[in-house]
Amino acid sequence: MSEFTAWVQGCQSRMEAVLAEVLPPVHIAPQRLHEAMRYAVLGGGKRVRPLLAFAAGEVTGASPERVQFAAAAVELIHAYSLVHDDMPAMDDDALRRGKPTVHVEFDEATALLVGDALQSLAFDALAAQPLANDPAAQLKMVHLLAQAAGSRGMAGGQAIDLASVGKSLDLAELEFMHIHKTGALIRASVLLGAHCGSPDEATLAALDHYAKCIGLAFQVVDDVLDAEAPTATLGKTAGKDAAHNKPTYVSLLGAAEARAFAHSLRKDALDALVPLPRVQRLRELADFVVERTF
Amino acid sequence: MSEFTAWVQGCQSRMEAVLAEVLPPVHIAPQRLHEAMRYAVLGGGKRVRPLLAFAAGEVTGASPERVQFAAAAVELIHAYSLVHDDMPAMDDDALRRGKPTVHVEFDEATALLVGDALQSLAFDALAAQPLANDPAAQLKMVHLLAQAAGSRGMAGGQAIDLASVGKSLDLAELEFMHIHKTGALIRASVLLGAHCGSPDEATLAALDHYAKCIGLAFQVVDDVLDAEAPTATLGKTAGKDAAHNKPTYVSLLGAAEARAFAHSLRKDALDALVPLPRVQRLRELADFVVERTF
Repeated sequence: MSEFTAWVQGCQSRMEAVLAEVLPPVHIAPQRLHEAMRYAVLGGGKRVRPLLAFAAGEVTGASPERVQFAAAAVELIHAYSLVHDDMPAMDDDALRRGKPTVHVEFDEATALLVGDALQSLAFDALAAQPLANDPAAQLKMVHLLAQAAGSRGMAGGQAIDLASVGKSLDLAELEFMHIHKTGALIRASVLLGAHCGSPDEATLAALDHYAKCIGLAFQVVDDVLDAEAPTATLGKTAGKDAAHNKPTYVSLLGAAEARAFAHSLRKDALDALVPLPRVQRLRELADFVVERTF
Repeated sequence: MSEFTAWVQGCQSRMEAVLAEVLPPVHIAPQRLHEAMRYAVLGGGKRVRPLLAFAAGEVTGASPERVQFAAAAVELIHAYSLVHDDMPAMDDDALRRGKPTVHVEFDEATALLVGDALQSLAFDALAAQPLANDPAAQLKMVHLLAQAAGSRGMAGGQAIDLASVGKSLDLAELEFMHIHKTGALIRASVLLGAHCGSPDEATLAALDHYAKCIGLAFQVVDDVLDAEAPTATLGKTAGKDAAHNKPTYVSLLGAAEARAFAHSLRKDALDALVPLPRVQRLRELADFVVERTF
């Protein structure tokens, strides 16, 4: 096992433990809601956003004991968005991370409330204890996450995505959608991790540029995998973009050019890291995002 | 017009202006989502939670220029909960504040995203600018709102409510549900307003006791009105609790005893205010909550 793989697994184990601690226990009422929240969050996922937060924290000298709660907050937002996206009113998907989706395993009303409560819990995790060198910086973190999750971030990206089904978007319009839908939260992961340490403005600007490139690369690779990988490997329904007649980087560029675009985004991301210290993990994550097969 | 009525209308006008400013404008993408968010929030509602925040702020010497953003945050959480509660997977209601509900006027997917984005916006409003004497107190406010909105607060109350349909709850179980469903956010309104000023622990404890009583009284009166008032007066579908076979204070106690219970809760609430300064508005609001007819 490579040293990077060991680091990834260490972060993933830490996240699982922190999320298990932050999520309400099942013996507290309302029990079925808490059971469904834990079902939605625990035991799966690559935890890419937390990995980015931990890696960005290394650049600014943040302690993992702080970063883990910022990472949990981002992951809870991500998890809530998956639960709501899978619902019949949205993507109507039955499979997620190799398991039945929340509205299938429980019911639609529970899925709705699970998503709602996970979003609240994300902000709870970000405000319940000191995570930054001063409380004003931590308030900035709350503001960053709220912007990234909201109508000018992830939720807005979902709305643009829904409105685009069956339409022919051009490359600029597709990028606009993804900058919101997945990019905003990936940027927030990196910036929140950095804010747990001692970032200066130049460092934040460089990290933000890295995060923008990686966020877009992540989505381009997602489109390639959706078009090419079998469902069993993905742990979610493959080929659903084409089935829903959604525009993707593959449908616009073809698979080969989409892959080349992802590689050029990785190069831009790595270039942004040049002036920064302790960037090994961020460099490795850039490779991981672009070369993954699941 | 009484002096109290003038104060109420002044607060309501201020809230309308602040909410209109905090909500994203419709000319920014995604336009349809922003249009639906504004539709869900603006131009209606008694703004009871903001009124409580402003009144509690008077006790602790908070400036209305700060309280208004804390009040907006609470009202945005309340508004998101109404949008999601009205959806077919939950209460399946077509009328709210005298207008078609969001999923009827727009569509289900939009209603889902409207609720999600309004919750993010609530935390945004609470973190975007200084609202307390120090940032640590403001972080406490974020924590309070997150707890009040989440699975051990409002969203949890919804889950308990759903699980109770068709069951015969006793009074303790009904109270447990309402302490979560409406009580948590009403307590948050009062405490957030107070945190914008200079509260001491004894003041917060007294205000919290007031808020618990008022929150429960509010729900008891809601049950009475739902059973007795015509739809046109309520601006939402009347009699729907009975139609859904939901346990209410009226079904458990009868209307007369339910009213008497509301009056005894008001007395408890007023008693809690005795040691505090500048409580006139809180006293008047206790009367308003118990004696309202809509």
